[in-house]
Amino acid sequence: GYGRFGIAYISDNGTGDSDTNVTSRFRLQIDATAESDAGVTIGARARIQQDADDAVSVDSLGADSDGDGVANFRSDRLGSGINGVRFFARSGGLEVGVGNIFGALEFMPGQYPIDLGLTGHNYDYTAFNFGGDAYDSDEEGAAGSNGVELMYSVGDFSAHISASDIGDRVAAYVAYTYSGITFALGGQDSDFAGDTELTATVSGTFGIADVALAYADNGTKGDHIVLAGRVAVGAATDIEAYIVDADQWSETGFGIDFNHDMGGGTSLRGGVSTGGSLGDETLVDMGVRFNF
Amino acid sequence: GYGRFGIAYISDNGTGDSDTNVTSRFRLQIDATAESDAGVTIGARARIQQDADDAVSVDSLGADSDGDGVANFRSDRLGSGINGVRFFARSGGLEVGVGNIFGALEFMPGQYPIDLGLTGHNYDYTAFNFGGDAYDSDEEGAAGSNGVELMYSVGDFSAHISASDIGDRVAAYVAYTYSGITFALGGQDSDFAGDTELTATVSGTFGIADVALAYADNGTKGDHIVLAGRVAVGAATDIEAYIVDADQWSETGFGIDFNHDMGGGTSLRGGVSTGGSLGDETLVDMGVRFNF
Amino acid sequence: GYGRFGIAYISDNGTGDSDTNVTSRFRLQIDATAESDAGVTIGARARIQQDADDAVSVDSLGADSDGDGVANFRSDRLGSGINGVRFFARSGGLEVGVGNIFGALEFMPGQYPIDLGLTGHNYDYTAFNFGGDAYDSDEEGAAGSNGVELMYSVGDFSAHISASDIGDRVAAYVAYTYSGITFALGGQDSDFAGDTELTATVSGTFGIADVALAYADNGTKGDHIVLAGRVAVGAATDIEAYIVDADQWSETGFGIDFNHDMGGGTSLRGGVSTGGSLGDETLVDMGVRFNF
Repeated sequence: GYGRFGIAYISDNGTGDSDTNVTSRFRLQIDATAESDAGVTIGARARIQQDADDAVSVDSLGADSDGDGVANFRSDRLGSGINGVRFFARSGGLEVGVGNIFGALEFMPGQYPIDLGLTGHNYDYTAFNFGGDAYDSDEEGAAGSNGVELMYSVGDFSAHISASDIGDRVAAYVAYTYSGITFALGGQDSDFAGDTELTATVSGTFGIADVALAYADNGTKGDHIVLAGRVAVGAATDIEAYIVDADQWSETGFGIDFNHDMGGGTSLRGGVSTGGSLGDETLVDMGVRFNF
Repeated sequence: GYGRFGIAYISDNGTGDSDTNVTSRFRLQIDATAESDAGVTIGARARIQQDADDAVSVDSLGADSDGDGVANFRSDRLGSGINGVRFFARSGGLEVGVGNIFGALEFMPGQYPIDLGLTGHNYDYTAFNFGGDAYDSDEEGAAGSNGVELMYSVGDFSAHISASDIGDRVAAYVAYTYSGITFALGGQDSDFAGDTELTATVSGTFGIADVALAYADNGTKGDHIVLAGRVAVGAATDIEAYIVDADQWSETGFGIDFNHDMGGGTSLRGGVSTGGSLGDETLVDMGVRFNF
Repeated sequence: GYGRFGIAYISDNGTGDSDTNVTSRFRLQIDATAESDAGVTIGARARIQQDADDAVSVDSLGADSDGDGVANFRSDRLGSGINGVRFFARSGGLEVGVGNIFGALEFMPGQYPIDLGLTGHNYDYTAFNFGGDAYDSDEEGAAGSNGVELMYSVGDFSAHISASDIGDRVAAYVAYTYSGITFALGGQDSDFAGDTELTATVSGTFGIADVALAYADNGTKGDHIVLAGRVAVGAATDIEAYIVDADQWSETGFGIDFNHDMGGGTSLRGGVSTGGSLGDETLVDMGVRFNF
């Protein structure tokens, strides 16, 4: 797992004032596996994750944070126990998963081209914008909702299909890597009007830069286009940036960050973003992250 | 601990329709011990267990799943943190336990002659039918209710006495093994009318089969008689079956399963049961289990 | 972590009757760290702690146990998941902490001169009497409330300053050890009328005894004076005792205990206390503790 902590600044916290707060996350990852004599690996992944961006209080425990009319397992910003568990069986390039599944769109190449700053900011640069099933680190995800998925990879080709009872979602992607450039195409059928219907990405390394271009048709939320990249500056530091234009937001979004590797699994990170889901406001964060 | 996942089918889910769902369990067992210079082992056992047979949602957290008028620690089908902890001190054949105790009737030989299919189905083949204290993997059990127990074994003889403030239960069993056949007799005094009053079992190996016969007088729930057995078929597979007749159910219950060892702590399991607590309905499950 | 269990007797449980109950605690400590190439240790501490002094039930989950008008993360006597996490970065004698911080007054030398009996009884012998931020093992502490602290030590000198949004507390202590005697002085600015304003301690070893004298000005709770000590009797046993006089209680408080080391991280402990926060009542506990 990993931990991170630092400072986050927002130019307007909703009351007209700016706000600077301590931000932190603790993620303890539990991977448990066994291997059959025939070489099939069977296992489970769970996480104990606690974020401190909001008050750690039972006030949020049981709140209806996703607005589906049903109180949530745990609200987004409180974590004391394990999340929904993902179970899997894997043999060669084939993997079956059930429970809190990864989700085909969430796992599609090019959806997470960068990870901005210390906290990821609002992930505006993720084109499908969470309009599909995804592994949920501090809630249940598709666990208990018949989440199932099939992942397959061979050579330069990979494919992933996932389904759950959450909006009767069925999603899939196929991806192919040619001369170091990965092309991926994904689609989904869902009962939610704001879910992603179609998404396509191109990502690869061009000279000194990793660059990704991503497009998604997010149903009633409209189109979502992202251009993002990463450049190494020196032996231990890189800079990431993105620009996003999405129909659901009135402003074009921008962000830039740095990541400095301090060795031993520790790093110093910080970023600034504006526009997109932030509207006119600016979000700045900086702090350290450590892997354990 | 262990994990398991697969498919469960029920012929009627309560609305007149049949239902097929993903079923899963994740159990992380925490055994912590220390040993004194005099050779006394002192320790604790806790579990983080999550089942996904029902929605993993806070809707069930705090529900009164056992109908005692008090909301539960965690409802049966939700697990994010540790259960009630059992503490013990053990020296030679003598063990004292407090907290979320095992319970004398639950631990009596012959009460769990088999473990049907992937999920255990409804454990109709457990004669005392949970009419007494038991270690509770996803709730508190007797923790916080002054649960205490004393276990003793020497040679072919074993005994166990347990007590708690839950219905002022006091229960005990004695067991003796003679020529490979184990005879056990248990009794209980309790304030709950539906608790077990008397139970007796005979279990042993007869040729190729492990067979157990169990009887319980479950108070106002009446008599409960179980015949169950296990037969090995081939080097890595066995078949288990039971028949149960209990006054609390109008139908005689039956069940049969298979367990196939795939090596490395993994196995393929499945079973079918009907009658008993299922009434006219049929329950089928199949899937994999892995120990870690 | 550690576990402990035993028996606790109180002469009046609030209904006019005496009460004897099983008491227990399970503490699983999770320390996760990484070290940068420059020698900075970055890490986090979390605990899964469950006490069984009260009913382990969701009835207490979410109760407003600290009376601040907001339901608590977890009530004091129930624990299933991790508490609020403390994050830190440490280099040489300097440490920065955020989240569920230790707190300057809680960490000041002389505030915990002894640990009475099996359970610590009511910690009447802690002069600042929890009138400040402290690491909270089964709630959130200052996590999510912008808790930050700076600790520094060099040779015989140490200092600690902490702050949080809980009552806008800012607290600090300085301590110096001279000829085996530690002098410590602490102060705090807080919005809570009953919080500690000033506290001073002297502690050291005098011949066969460890002795500490502590004073605190606890705001509207008035003065709090403690004299406490520990004497070794034989190779594996010690006896601790305290006397406390505090304006907030009508009775002077007394307590005495024994701790007998049984080897391998196990010990037998017991104590008796009266007066102070207990008023006319008497509290007795005895049991075993094991470290793991």
